[in-house]
Amino acid sequence: MSLTGHIGTFAATMAADGMPSEARERARRGFVDCLAVMVAGSTQEGVRILRSTLGAGTAGGEASLHLSELRACAVTAALVNGTAAHALDYDDTSPAGHRSAVLVPAILAEGEVIGATGAAMLTAYVVGFEVWSELARREPGQLHERGWHPTGAYGAAAAAAAIANLRRLGSIEAVHAIGIGASQTGGLVANFGSMTKPFHAGRAASSGLLAARLAANGMTASDTVIEHPQGLLSAVSHQGGVDLESPCRLGTAWRILEQGLSFKKYPVCYCSHRAIDAILDLRVQLGFDAADIVEIEARIGTTQATVLEHHRPTTALAAKFSLEFALACAVLDGDVALAHLTDARVQAPAMRDLMAKIRVAIIAERDPLLPGYSPYDQVQLRLASGEVRLSKRVARARGHITDADLRRKFNDCLAFAGSDLDADAMFDLLQDFEELPAGWTASLPRIRPPSRSARTAAG
Amino acid sequence: MSLTGHIGTFAATMAADGMPSEARERARRGFVDCLAVMVAGSTQEGVRILRSTLGAGTAGGEASLHLSELRACAVTAALVNGTAAHALDYDDTSPAGHRSAVLVPAILAEGEVIGATGAAMLTAYVVGFEVWSELARREPGQLHERGWHPTGAYGAAAAAAAIANLRRLGSIEAVHAIGIGASQTGGLVANFGSMTKPFHAGRAASSGLLAARLAANGMTASDTVIEHPQGLLSAVSHQGGVDLESPCRLGTAWRILEQGLSFKKYPVCYCSHRAIDAILDLRVQLGFDAADIVEIEARIGTTQATVLEHHRPTTALAAKFSLEFALACAVLDGDVALAHLTDARVQAPAMRDLMAKIRVAIIAERDPLLPGYSPYDQVQLRLASGEVRLSKRVARARGHITDADLRRKFNDCLAFAGSDLDADAMFDLLQDFEELPAGWTASLPRIRPPSRSARTAAG
Repeated sequence: MSLTGHIGTFAATMAADGMPSEARERARRGFVDCLAVMVAGSTQEGVRILRSTLGAGTAGGEASLHLSELRACAVTAALVNGTAAHALDYDDTSPAGHRSAVLVPAILAEGEVIGATGAAMLTAYVVGFEVWSELARREPGQLHERGWHPTGAYGAAAAAAAIANLRRLGSIEAVHAIGIGASQTGGLVANFGSMTKPFHAGRAASSGLLAARLAANGMTASDTVIEHPQGLLSAVSHQGGVDLESPCRLGTAWRILEQGLSFKKYPVCYCSHRAIDAILDLRVQLGFDAADIVEIEARIGTTQATVLEHHRPTTALAAKFSLEFALACAVLDGDVALAHLTDARVQAPAMRDLMAKIRVAIIAERDPLLPGYSPYDQVQLRLASGEVRLSKRVARARGHITDADLRRKFNDCLAFAGSDLDADAMFDLLQDFEELPAGWTASLPRIRPPSRSARTAAG
Repeated sequence: MSLTGHIGTFAATMAADGMPSEARERARRGFVDCLAVMVAGSTQEGVRILRSTLGAGTAGGEASLHLSELRACAVTAALVNGTAAHALDYDDTSPAGHRSAVLVPAILAEGEVIGATGAAMLTAYVVGFEVWSELARREPGQLHERGWHPTGAYGAAAAAAAIANLRRLGSIEAVHAIGIGASQTGGLVANFGSMTKPFHAGRAASSGLLAARLAANGMTASDTVIEHPQGLLSAVSHQGGVDLESPCRLGTAWRILEQGLSFKKYPVCYCSHRAIDAILDLRVQLGFDAADIVEIEARIGTTQATVLEHHRPTTALAAKFSLEFALACAVLDGDVALAHLTDARVQAPAMRDLMAKIRVAIIAERDPLLPGYSPYDQVQLRLASGEVRLSKRVARARGHITDADLRRKFNDCLAFAGSDLDADAMFDLLQDFEELPAGWTASLPRIRPPSRSARTAAG
């Protein structure tokens, strides 16, 4: 069977009992985290522009926008929700793109239309995740360097596979869905730092959903779209050399368990997360405050330091890519949360004073599994007393987020969006995701639509 | 100014009086031809699937679908109309993609919403064409070989530029429109031969229109999206080596005059068109019929012969890529038209007998301006009388179509769609395109929606 045929058959036939339950539990955490950042992201200007341009309203429409009273057709809902989920850059990450910001909006929208159970949605999520990983592992280069945003490059085909599973398409239709999705690949790195970056996630979600609907209705595509010499992998490949030889691992290896999802505890660039963990740990341990500090030396990897390029940020947007801000905020506020990502907080005198005491040192060694990172990050503190204290070495932020962290983030995100819902009750409901009955989304309480004057943190 | 800035400024500021009127006349012919093939293509299965999946109806909706009573929002109308325009592979071609099948549906849909004049639509078309050419000339390789369909790769950004012009956006908004359009690049060669191929044109039209609307409402994108090291040209480039150095020629050179549009007189692969011209010319000259013929030798270029790979076709779809069918049809029927593209006609005994008498000879020399073609094509006829007759050498099918040919094609396309409109009257109206007043599309007579049983020729 062709590679595309394998992928289509996997998408069409995989059921919950064919995968480890732990895979669905990982998906559940991805789902819950994504719902939270999607609600928070719904306040952002780019999302508001998208809603008004597409004419979303409170009446009619198959599917709801970011758990609010606003509704639209499912294809539009996936577009808006995917963009909202990625708008704050607070959604989860994996080696080849932002999985949940694409998969969750597509599955949520189509799931609402067909009245899918929680278990069916989680199964579809795992299918989308695995297909995404199977595509990404065959291209050894870095898509970014050529210009393709992996979220856009793999997202539409993976979302098409997920929706093919959710809708129980036949294998041939699933192949066509993936083929139609693959032809909607897009998303340029050049657009990072603009409102178009989160739009890439929404576009992939929406394209995958439309692709599955078209295939279900009989639209045809190539049955070798992935491995064809003029197919998806060739087209997005960094330098060629795509692996078309190794056997398809779908259904035997579970990449969602091997790779996991990296959840963000802090709404800033993921490159700073391990150093934040380190300094918060020291803070608890030593009980110091800002006045005690003479100098903070943060030791991080080469690529991390390149990305964290804003050493003296003055806006919340730039502060997302500033290790100095992240550490100063952690010292001053004991946390780095959405509420701290405001221009005023970034410009506060106490913040600026402390940022000036922070310097970055490079750990040249690279983590063999994650070459963009050093094997660990560490923070060294020099106190007014002359004492020097070294944090523990933090090797993995990935997967490090606890259920308590997730709950805190969930509450924080809903509060950021001005929601008056009982966030704890909704979080509790979502703990039993796998048991949620058919049509559960229809009975969810709704958040009021974001107003023009809603919070506009950095996005 | 950055290259993207130049392009955005051109899109924002170009007016009819800044370009040669001959450029708009070329655009007019592209517009009229595209309208005809769009109406004919509306009968095809892929277009029907798209309409029903997207829920197009006869009530409401900003814009009309393929001149029918069906309506949808403009973004959807551009998607359906672009797919319809490309569905029969009968739309015009240019060196880097199918221009009209992308530009016309986008301009027609948004033009209907804002009530644009004919002159404004033609100006926007020329802007889109020129931007497309400016992008394409900077990438010297063949996008096809890597997997990108040039129509999808350049179409969305070019359509965004056209709509930015139509809507009179400012230069900054036009740059953002092009940036949002560029991130929606897609379309894989692997999907050629399936219903997804024409969808590429629709997707580009729709994406460009949405991009311009989003930018008009304030969505931002990179202001260097074309030339950025991780921008559009790098991402789609065949082998790298993109030309970012030569000055932007927009507004000084007019590629629509240099390159023109290649209109299809016959609804079969463009590679066979010059040989069809040659044999039809001989047929008029000599007045032979099929019984007189012992052998036909058709002399064409190497690449043309590779593409025309179906030597004994049995379906209308395959016959589109058969020189033997094309020439036999020309001899038997005195034309190659939509009515001949049926499986029954392809399988008719007289057709099969004549196809068996045709052989293809290769002219190895390549046209320096169009390396996929020989410098000319020619047909040699051996008659039962022993006489051997050689046709003229046909060097250019491109631009060769006369107004009478266009009118005949227009009528043929409308008849194919089962239209009962006065096609001649509509064609006459469109001769004065430049004078059409604001809102002219609203007063066009409407074709009834295609029925499920409409004609389904090869697509």
